[in-house]
This record gives sequence, C-alpha cells and structure tokens, in this order.
Amino acid sequence: MKSKSSVIRILYAASEQSADIFYLTKVFVPDPFLCFIVGGRSTAVVNRLEYSRVRAQSNCDQVLLLETVQGQAAKALRIELSAVGPAEMMCYFAKLNKVRELEVPEDFPSVYFAKLLAAGMQVRVGADPFFPARELKSDAEAKALRQGNAASAAGIRTAERVLRASKIVGKCLKYEGRTLTSEWLRMMIDQACLTKGAVAQNTIVAGGKQGCDPHEGGHGPLKSNELIIVDVFPRVQKTGYHGDMTRTFLKGRANDAQRALVGAVRDAQLAALAKVKAGVSGATVHAAAVQIFDDRVFLTERRGEGFVGFIHSTGHGLGLEVHEAPRVSPNAGRLRQGQVITIEPGLYYPEVGGCRIEDVVRVTKEGSEMLSSMHYKWELR
Amino acid sequence: MKSKSSVIRILYAASEQSADIFYLTKVFVPDPFLCFIVGGRSTAVVNRLEYSRVRAQSNCDQVLLLETVQGQAAKALRIELSAVGPAEMMCYFAKLNKVRELEVPEDFPSVYFAKLLAAGMQVRVGADPFFPARELKSDAEAKALRQGNAASAAGIRTAERVLRASKIVGKCLKYEGRTLTSEWLRMMIDQACLTKGAVAQNTIVAGGKQGCDPHEGGHGPLKSNELIIVDVFPRVQKTGYHGDMTRTFLKGRANDAQRALVGAVRDAQLAALAKVKAGVSGATVHAAAVQIFDDRVFLTERRGEGFVGFIHSTGHGLGLEVHEAPRVSPNAGRLRQGQVITIEPGLYYPEVGGCRIEDVVRVTKEGSEMLSSMHYKWELR
Repeated sequence: MKSKSSVIRILYAASEQSADIFYLTKVFVPDPFLCFIVGGRSTAVVNRLEYSRVRAQSNCDQVLLLETVQGQAAKALRIELSAVGPAEMMCYFAKLNKVRELEVPEDFPSVYFAKLLAAGMQVRVGADPFFPARELKSDAEAKALRQGNAASAAGIRTAERVLRASKIVGKCLKYEGRTLTSEWLRMMIDQACLTKGAVAQNTIVAGGKQGCDPHEGGHGPLKSNELIIVDVFPRVQKTGYHGDMTRTFLKGRANDAQRALVGAVRDAQLAALAKVKAGVSGATVHAAAVQIFDDRVFLTERRGEGFVGFIHSTGHGLGLEVHEAPRVSPNAGRLRQGQVITIEPGLYYPEVGGCRIEDVVRVTKEGSEMLSSMHYKWELR
Repeated sequence: MKSKSSVIRILYAASEQSADIFYLTKVFVPDPFLCFIVGGRSTAVVNRLEYSRVRAQSNCDQVLLLETVQGQAAKALRIELSAVGPAEMMCYFAKLNKVRELEVPEDFPSVYFAKLLAAGMQVRVGADPFFPARELKSDAEAKALRQGNAASAAGIRTAERVLRASKIVGKCLKYEGRTLTSEWLRMMIDQACLTKGAVAQNTIVAGGKQGCDPHEGGHGPLKSNELIIVDVFPRVQKTGYHGDMTRTFLKGRANDAQRALVGAVRDAQLAALAKVKAGVSGATVHAAAVQIFDDRVFLTERRGEGFVGFIHSTGHGLGLEVHEAPRVSPNAGRLRQGQVITIEPGLYYPEVGGCRIEDVVRVTKEGSEMLSSMHYKWELR
C-alpha cells in the first residue's frame, strides 16, 4: 500500500484570486503564498505581514513564517538566503517530508513548474478539479450561494424599480430627470449588491443590439421598447461565494417577435430545469432547452462575422468562481448530487434583441433545489 | 541575425483576471483564451460567444474563431476534433508559423506547459515582466491611474464625512442612529467608488488593534479615540487601472502616543517621497522612511506571534494590478522614469494602534508627479 505521504500536493497562488487555495485555507491573502498538503496535513507559509492573521483565521493545520522557512531552506539546501524563492522552498519541503513526487494544480505557475523540473524533482499536474469536493456543495455552501443570489436579486430588483420609475421621452428613458444609461443603471445595481455584502464586477446591462453580444457590458442610453439583459454575478465578500442571475426587461411595449422570443427562452429554461436531477447528463439538460428552440424554429447560425440564436451552453457550475465545473453543454457528463449549476438559455437576434433568463439550482436525488429567487415579469409599462 | 519569428510568445488566460493578456488585447474576456505573438503580430482565438465583440474592441492584429481553428488544427495534426485543446492549438500555431521555440509568461498554466513539453516542443518561461513596457506608464495610463485614485479619494472622503457626522456614544460611534461598524463604513466607501466608475474589493476599514494587522479588513463596531486605517484600492471598470490610497483617521481625541505615531508616518512618507527620482534606487527611498522611524525610536520587532513597527515595505508598483513591479523595499533596484509607485510607510503597535498613509506617484527625471490627491487631516472631533 502506498503511504499517504508519498505525494506532496503544492499550491502557490493568492487566495483573493485563486479559488483552490482559498477553498483549502479559507483565508483571503492578496499576494501569492505557498501552501502544501502532505500526509493529509495542510501547511501555509506566509510572511510576517500576514502571519498572525492567517494563524488566527485560516483552516490550515500549520502556518509557518516565511522568513523562518527561508532560513531553514537555505541551510538545508546549502544555498544563499537570497536564492531561496518559492521553488526552493517547495524542494525543501519535499525533501523534509521524504517525498519524491509533487503534484500541482492545472493553473500552477509555469515558472515554478519549470524550476522544479530543472531541480530534478518528479512533478506532475494533478487532475482537475484539484479538490473534487469543491464541486459538491455542502448545506453551508448552498446557503452562501443563496446569499450570493440574494445580492443578485437585490441588484436586479433595483434595475426593475429604476426602469419602472423611468419616463419614456422620445426613444430614451429619463430617470430622476436624466437620461438613463447602461453605465448609470449598472452603478445602481452594483451599489445594491454592496448593501447585501457582495461585490459585483462586469455586471451586464445591455439593451437592443448590444444585448446580442452575450458578454457586452452595455453602454450609452437605454431605449424604450428594446429588450434589456441584466446579468448580475456578485461575490459575497465574507464567504467568497457568488450569485449569478439574469433577467431580461423591456420598458414600454413589446412587439410580437419580442414576446415570442422571451416566451421561448422562459419555456426553454423551464424545460431544462425539469430535467435537472442527479444521474441525468448535462447534455440532456442542454438538449431540453435546444428542443424548445428547434420546435419554435429559432435557428442558431452564423451571419457574416456574428452568430445568432442560442449561441452558448445552458449553464455552468457556480461557487467560489463564477464559471466552474460542471458544464451544462452538448457533451457534458452526468450531474451529481450537490453540484450547483446555472440554467440560463438565451436567444440573440439583432433585429429582435437578446434575451437570457438565468437561475441557480443545486442538484438533488429527486431533481433540484432553487438557490435563486426573483419573479419573471419583464414588460414594464 | 535571428529572425523575429523564431519565437512564438503564447498567453492563455482570462483578461478579466490576468493583466498581461489584457495589456496585450485591451478587451475584457471572462474565460481563458489563447493569444500569441509571432513576427510582431498578435492573434487572439476566441469562441463564437466573444468573436464579434473581440473583433470590434480588441487591440489584436488578428482575431480568429476558436471553432474554425479547432477544425484546422485537427486536420493539420491529424487528430480527432475532440482532442484539440489549448495545447494542441499552440502546437498547431507554432508549426504553422514554422517556429520551434515557445515562450510563455511566469503564470502560464502548468497543465499546458507540461503538455507542450510532452509534445516535444521547445518551451521556456519568459522574463518577468512579460511585457516590460507595462512598467513604464504612458500619459494615458497615468491619467487612468489618476482616475483610479480619484475613486479612492471619493471613498476616503466618504469615510471622513461619515466619521465627522457620527456621534460618540460611550466608546462607540453612532451614524444616523445606528452603531457604525467597519462593514457599514466599507460599504459606503465602496458605493462611493462606484460613483466614480470603479469597483473596490477588500477595502480596509480597520480600527484599534485590528489596524495593526495590515491586511485585516476590519469588522465590528468602530471606536472613538482609536486610529482607523482606511485603505481603498479600486479598479476603474472601463480602463482596468487601479487607485490605491490610504488615510488614517481618529474620531474623538488623540493621545500623545497616537500623535507621535501619525506624525512619524507622515514625515516618513514625506522623506520617502522626497527621494523618488529616476535613477535613485527603491532601496534608498525605503531607507529614507526607515531613517525617520529609527530617529524617533519606533522599533520593528517580533513580539510573540506578532510583529510590531514598520513591518512592510514602503511601496509597490501600481497599474493593471494592485501589486506589480517595481518594489520599493530594502533590496529594490533603480527607479525608472514612468514607473508608478505607491509610497505608504506605516507603523503598527497594538497598544497605540496602526497608522498607514499612502499616495501614488509617477517617477520623473526630476523627481515625481503625484497621481493621488487628498488632504492629511486625521483628528476628527
């Protein structure tokens, strides 16, 4: 039998940026630091600026002071103190623990990967996800994701309230006497997220043709009688978990084409949601949405340099990252109990507008549990 | 003479996360994508979801459609379409351009580094920074950094206004009838940053002993007569450039020890600022701050599991990242014209409190140009 300590798993990242090292340590650190697991025990190495805070707050079994470790590594490796960087410390800890094999995550920095190889270490890239448990959300994590979606909903409700209160003047919308722009509405949405303890970045408020570029943030005056996509995916500052919700609004009067489009998207979402269940493949869920669009002859195709129709997948995992495993797409595998995914079909045709409706669910044995909550009224007079 | 196209430089990252690929492409993309430079020309490969937006907005010489490239790579490499991942596309482009050597940035994902090696490619990690020009800020970049600092200043002025308007009740502060906490004040600061088009994350509002952990965000009720560190480093959403400013306030009456501490930090900042000039080493700038603290016998030392005194470096580069090159620390090299750095000495003693004062300057031939602006009054009655 292989002993547990035959492999040392090494991470080197800033936990404010990298979900894996945050998942392991449960403490936010702004600069990259070394963390490793050997024999089931986790150790973080941080400088004196972080030391007492990380000791007090982190989930690690052991927290070591960088300055001390550097001195020990220099002595053990018989090199100058100034020559001790992250790769040298990694070698030192591997030797100290009598471990020959190093395992690193996919996003481990190549600079250290190359240095470890050059030092003759046996290093391999581990499977992705590096911590498979990250994909299966506990009740506490589901609660944190609900909080994220409560922040999203607060943002989207703000958008609804502002659009309702706006007046149509010509084709423009006036709010509190000024022309309502994507930028201004985004600011109010993001401020609402902050009241729920969550920071929103790259919030989408895209109307008309702009909404047909699914990752266009939106800019300039919002117009009446146009579909406006509002996609809000903030991160709760305390826990690090996200919300991710989208609603599509229209201020004024929708035409038949817009109503048919929004109706199809909502029905596709319902069809996809109805399929979600542990053991069912993500591909099946995606196909349910596609079927609705096919039935109603909403074609997905290339037009010149652009694409129209249902041009993205039905959903993705949500957690410490906005986009994480699993995928809900044509080739996706079986869903497992505890996975948290978005269900967000959309249709995009420049002559009609773009529409996306997104909610978040946790996969259960029987089906799914909604982690987001907000109504679906979209025509705002 | 080596031809320009003997090396292909490859990046693979999300430009919302990674500064290098944003610096090159000037377009925000939320998921990792492939970008390469060969013969001085840059190419981005993006999926159909991003294609028209990236074509319209990016700075790249060429934008290719991922789905097309995958098909071409499968054919050229004689492999299944489903086997074409990022590493296979990298090999394909290297071969297509008849280039044998690949260069990647330090933070290039190890998973692709390992695959390129396994495919027999000659791949090396390039020097850091990958784009040396990133360190020397143009006038347009300096303007963007001023906007970042205007957002920081808006946040800090909000903190000042709220602290001034608060009433001291017992040891607590009451604002609009409620107990003022770090969390609430942080929210108001972050909302103010949004009004300037900037997203703040991990804003620090840390009073008393909490302020003595320089990266502690702060939590719970703020107290009268205690030093409160307010550190705001938002990112301007449009440009991607940051602000980074710190002020230390006290609501109530400061004691002599607190006045001596704040006076020393401000004098250390002035001494360091006076040294900044192209050709002067960052070490000299740092030493000027240290000298003030030495003269006034503010010791830096370990106390049990914590550290007191001046426990960090004087500053760091600021740009698309909050912490980037160069450093302003004991072993830092010569400053160069155009570098943008923070100057932020601090002192931390649990029995007195923590104080940090931070501004941002651009290094010039004659000295420096301030990119941040906010007064230094700190005792708020």
